Amino acid sequence: MRGDEHEVLAGARRTLGGLEFFRRMITGELPLPPLAAAMGFRIIEVAEGRAVFEADPLPAFYNGLGSVHGGFSATLLDTALGGAVNSTTGPGRAYATVDLKVTLIRPLRHEVGAVRCIATLIQAGSRLATAEARIVDGQGKIYAHGTATCMIVDTQ
Amino acid sequence: MRGDEHEVLAGARRTLGGLEFFRRMITGELPLPPLAAAMGFRIIEVAEGRAVFEADPLPAFYNGLGSVHGGFSATLLDTALGGAVNSTTGPGRAYATVDLKVTLIRPLRHEVGAVRCIATLIQAGSRLATAEARIVDGQGKIYAHGTATCMIVDTQ
Amino acid sequence: MRGDEHEVLAGARRTLGGLEFFRRMITGELPLPPLAAAMGFRIIEVAEGRAVFEADPLPAFYNGLGSVHGGFSATLLDTALGGAVNSTTGPGRAYATVDLKVTLIRPLRHEVGAVRCIATLIQAGSRLATAEARIVDGQGKIYAHGTATCMIVDTQ
Amino acid sequence: MRGDEHEVLAGARRTLGGLEFFRRMITGELPLPPLAAAMGFRIIEVAEGRAVFEADPLPAFYNGLGSVHGGFSATLLDTALGGAVNSTTGPGRAYATVDLKVTLIRPLRHEVGAVRCIATLIQAGSRLATAEARIVDGQGKIYAHGTATCMIVDTQ
Repeated sequence: MRGDEHEVLAGARRTLGGLEFFRRMITGELPLPPLAAAMGFRIIEVAEGRAVFEADPLPAFYNGLGSVHGGFSATLLDTALGGAVNSTTGPGRAYATVDLKVTLIRPLRHEVGAVRCIATLIQAGSRLATAEARIVDGQGKIYAHGTATCMIVDTQ
Repeated sequence: MRGDEHEVLAGARRTLGGLEFFRRMITGELPLPPLAAAMGFRIIEVAEGRAVFEADPLPAFYNGLGSVHGGFSATLLDTALGGAVNSTTGPGRAYATVDLKVTLIRPLRHEVGAVRCIATLIQAGSRLATAEARIVDGQGKIYAHGTATCMIVDTQ
Repeated sequence: MRGDEHEVLAGARRTLGGLEFFRRMITGELPLPPLAAAMGFRIIEVAEGRAVFEADPLPAFYNGLGSVHGGFSATLLDTALGGAVNSTTGPGRAYATVDLKVTLIRPLRHEVGAVRCIATLIQAGSRLATAEARIVDGQGKIYAHGTATCMIVDTQ
Repeated sequence: MRGDEHEVLAGARRTLGGLEFFRRMITGELPLPPLAAAMGFRIIEVAEGRAVFEADPLPAFYNGLGSVHGGFSATLLDTALGGAVNSTTGPGRAYATVDLKVTLIRPLRHEVGAVRCIATLIQAGSRLATAEARIVDGQGKIYAHGTATCMIVDTQ
C-alpha cells in the first residue's frame, strides 16, 4: 500500500460517477479502498444497482470464539452495499451509509473458502437509497445478510 | 502475529468465563482476537455488562469517499458490544452476535484522533442478550452508535 | 370482535403447524389475530416460506405529520414476515420475532389505495429464521421494506 | 374519532415547533394522532430530546401466538422515538423516521398492565437525528427496545 490511496480515490470520485469509479478499480486503474484492500476483497462485478465482491474468511479475521469476526462480514456487506448504491450516482454525487443492518446466520470459518457478497439496490430516490446483500459460499449456502440505508452526499 | 491466536483464544474461552477472558487480554496473558489486533484496537476496560475499546481511525481504514470505512466502525462496535455481552457469561457459555445495527452519524477521519467505543449491556436472559454502544472522540462528540442482539452458544 | 380470538388462536397454534394455521385463516375457520383484524389486514396468500398480506393506509392510521404512522407499516411488515417464517414450522414449534428492522422509503397516504406486503423467507435453521418483506402499491411502487430475525419457540 | 384529526394535526404542525405541538396534545388542545389514539396511547411527558408514552398491552393487540403483536411495540416505540426527535425541531421543520429497529426481548401480555415507552434523543444534526427508546413495565422490567434514524423534512 502506498499510503495515499484514499486521497487518490476521493479525488477520482469527485469527477467520476460511481459506476465508472468501480470500473477503474476492476481494470486496476484505481486502487481498492484501503480497508477493502487490507482485507483482500476482490471486485467481481459492478453494474448499475448491483455489486459483487469476493473475500476469504482467513484466520487473521477471527474473533475470540473460533470463527470469523462479525466485523469482517459487516465490512464485506458494507463494501458491496455501498457499491450497489454508488453505482447509480453520477459525477458530483455519492451516497454515504447511514444505517447498516447485519444479520449473522451461521459461523463463518476459513474452511468454507472464498465467499461472495452479492448486493442489489432496492430503491434510489433523490435523498435516500437502500440496498440488500447476502454472503454466500461456493455452494450458495448463506452465512450473513444485511441492508443499508444511504443518504445522498455531495462529492465536490 | 503468530497465526494461531484464534486457536489459543477459542481454547481459553472454552474454560474461562467471559470476564476472566477479557481480563487476561488486558494483562497481556491472552492476545487480542486477530481482527481487533490488526485494526489496532486497545481494550481499555471490561466490567460486568460494560466494555470500552479504543482505536485510531487511520487512513489505512478509509473507504473510497475520503473518510473511514463503515466496516471500521462496525468492527469496533461489534467488538465492544460482544465484550459487554460476553462479560456476563460464565465458563462453558458465550453469546454470538446475531443482529448488529450500526448507525453512522457523521464522517470519521484520521484528524479526529483516537476514538473510544463504550458498550453497555441492555439485558441478558437465558437465550438472548442485547447491548448498545457509541463511538465518541476525546471531546465526547459522537460519530456512530449501534446495538447488538446475541444468542447464547455453547463453548464446549 | 368477540374478545377471545387470541385464546382461540393460541390454542389452535399449539396443535397445528404454521402453514395449516394460516390456511384456516384464509378459509375463515380461524379468525385473524386481533391487531391485524383491527387494522383491516387481509391474508392474500401463504405458502411455505412466503406470505402476502393486503391493507389500506386509511386516515385512521395517520401520524401527526400528514401520512400513515410508521407503526402501520411496521405492523404490516411484522405480520407478513412472521407469516413467511411460521409457514415453515410444524406442530409444536413456532418462531417469535426478536429483531424487526423497518425502512420507510417514502410517505404512505390513503390516496395510494390498497398496498400489499410480500414477505419471503431468507433462511430457516434449527434456532433462527430470517425473512424480508416489501410494501408495494398496485403499480409495484415500493413504500417500505424490512427484515425480521426470529427465534424458535415451543408452542406447547 | 372525528375522522379529520390527521388534517388538524398536519395543519398545526406546519406552524408549530415540535415541542409546542406535543404540549398541546398533553393539554388536550390538539388530538393525539389517529393510530396512537386508537391504540390508547397516553402522552406522559415530552421535553426537549425526551418523550414518554404509556399504553396497555390489551388482548385486542395480540398476535396469533398468545402475546402482544410486535406491531404494538413497534408503534409505541415509533411514537415515542418520533416525539423525542421532533421535540427538538422548530416551526417549519420536522423529522420523518427512515429506519426503525425494534428488539423484542420477552413476550408482552395483558397481565403486565400499563407499560411506558421512554425515548431519548441520541443526536440531532442538520440532516439526521437519532434516538433510542425502551418499553418497561411498572417495576422497570424491560420488554422491548429500539432506535430510530430520522431525516429532516419540510412541513410547509
